[in-house]
Amino acid sequence: MAVKLVVLYTQPDDAEAFDDHYLREHMTGVAAIPGLQRAESGRFVAAADGGELSWYRIAELWFDDEAALQSALGSEQGQATAADYGAIAPPGSRLFVVAVD
Amino acid sequence: MAVKLVVLYTQPDDAEAFDDHYLREHMTGVAAIPGLQRAESGRFVAAADGGELSWYRIAELWFDDEAALQSALGSEQGQATAADYGAIAPPGSRLFVVAVD
Repeated sequence: MAVKLVVLYTQPDDAEAFDDHYLREHMTGVAAIPGLQRAESGRFVAAADGGELSWYRIAELWFDDEAALQSALGSEQGQATAADYGAIAPPGSRLFVVAVD
Repeated sequence: MAVKLVVLYTQPDDAEAFDDHYLREHMTGVAAIPGLQRAESGRFVAAADGGELSWYRIAELWFDDEAALQSALGSEQGQATAADYGAIAPPGSRLFVVAVD
C-alpha cells in the first residue's frame, strides 16, 4: 500500500526568502531521496471554508510502501533533507505519514 | 497553474462508520465532479515529528486551474458533494485551496 509523507508548513517570516530556498534547494534535495516515487509541493492560497489560512505550504512525498519510506528517511539524502526541513520549517510546521487509500 | 482542494478531516467518533460512508459514497460523489483531474484520499497513520496526530484523513482534488475548481464547486455535483462534506466532516475539519508548484 502506497504511503506518503505529508508536510504542512506554517507561515514563514520572510515568504520570499523561504520560497527561494525551498523551491531551489530543498525540493531539489527531496527529489534525490532514494525510493521516492513522486513529490509535489504547493502554496495555500485560500481557506475554502472561510476559516483561518492556517498553513503556508504543503508538500507530499509518495513511496511504494512503509518500508520504502523508512528506508528513504534513514538514507544519507533523507537525513540531509530532514536536517534542512528542521532548519527552515517555521514553528508549528508538521510532518505526518499518510496511508493512501 | 494546477490547483487542488485539500481537505483535512479531524477524528470522527465512529471511524469505521465514517470510513464506510466516506469510501463508498463520498469519494464516489467526488469522482463524479465535472472537471476533476484526479482525486486521492488517505488516512493519517503517524506523526513523523513525534507530535499530536491532529488529523484523521486527508483528501485532495486536483483541477486544471482556479476557474475549473470554481466551476466544479458551483456545479450540481459539486454542491451535492459539498453538502455531504458538511454532513460528515467532524468539527474542526478544514478545506483549503492550494496552488500546485
